[in-house]
Amino acid sequence: MQVLQSSTLLDNAVLEFSKLPGIGKKTALRLVLHLLRQTEEDVESFANSLLNLRQNILYCKICHNISDTEICGICSDKSRDETTVCVVETIKDVMAIENTQQYKGLYHVLGGIISPMNGIGPSDLEINSLIERVEKGNIKEIIFALSTTMEGDTTCFYLYRKLAPSNVKMTVLARGVAVGDELEYADEVTLGRSIVNRMPLDYQK
Amino acid sequence: MQVLQSSTLLDNAVLEFSKLPGIGKKTALRLVLHLLRQTEEDVESFANSLLNLRQNILYCKICHNISDTEICGICSDKSRDETTVCVVETIKDVMAIENTQQYKGLYHVLGGIISPMNGIGPSDLEINSLIERVEKGNIKEIIFALSTTMEGDTTCFYLYRKLAPSNVKMTVLARGVAVGDELEYADEVTLGRSIVNRMPLDYQK
Repeated sequence: MQVLQSSTLLDNAVLEFSKLPGIGKKTALRLVLHLLRQTEEDVESFANSLLNLRQNILYCKICHNISDTEICGICSDKSRDETTVCVVETIKDVMAIENTQQYKGLYHVLGGIISPMNGIGPSDLEINSLIERVEKGNIKEIIFALSTTMEGDTTCFYLYRKLAPSNVKMTVLARGVAVGDELEYADEVTLGRSIVNRMPLDYQK
Repeated sequence: MQVLQSSTLLDNAVLEFSKLPGIGKKTALRLVLHLLRQTEEDVESFANSLLNLRQNILYCKICHNISDTEICGICSDKSRDETTVCVVETIKDVMAIENTQQYKGLYHVLGGIISPMNGIGPSDLEINSLIERVEKGNIKEIIFALSTTMEGDTTCFYLYRKLAPSNVKMTVLARGVAVGDELEYADEVTLGRSIVNRMPLDYQK
């Protein structure tokens, strides 16, 4: 749809909204006109929540999860099992696993997976900090909770080779998660069961 | 999906996004995480476009269309036919008709339609200002381009009765628009043709 607006202010807002993923020109216009009908305070609170988020958000120094403080709520929670670390790709995966309420250990967010096609190598990920955490010695088990895609398996194998000298126990999620699926879209029951039924990691050397 | 975030900043942003129509918690989270990956300038420009819009937008003093100036671009365009006024419900309808490129007259945005079910009466709409415009005498034709719903027909009839004493010519869109459809979702060909084939308005008194 061609949109000929009589207002550059409106045009700008629609353009900015349509930059978001999955939001086209028509949806953007609908959202902007909705905001126009809200009070000025409501729109300010919407805009400020985004500015605050972008300007003040921190990433946990230990697990690299998103956080309001230098050490995130999960890492600083003394009731959680500090000897188990679950390695995930993104903060969305942390949320997905937390939602299963089946896991009480800590996390390590890699910030992506090894993907030569997209130019992402091991040095772009939080792999060295994971090795440092393991070398400190109080971690007994590492759970690899990566997507069951080729990139996920490659990353898992790379980490296995890197961490093998430390003799830490390494496990992967039970393959209840359908092969080829992205982790964040798995349903909670499947994901929860695959955490409970995690298996020892043993590649043929 | 239950979302247990480790960050109140993130929670706030997700909550604000999910207030928008058609945006659920999961989509809101996806959009917020997308914004987190953008540069600070990009997020600022997004937030500021919304603040600017809400704080600085004006409504045209003549036709009540959205505008950056006191008189909108359509009303101040001397090449347009000032003797024809198209009465519409919302600014979205102005955009829809402008997109057909079949209409060169002016507009009058009512700001809604008479709907007793939703507590909207004639006094809530820009009806008096329409009557004033007609009474000034240089308008020769009023086109009613309201939705073909019961509320639209009611509003049309109400305006017809109010404007009948002024002896202005009144027309409605050709009923090429499917009955029961909202005007803004009509396709451009149908809408364009219904502007060209508009019919004289003649209720049985």
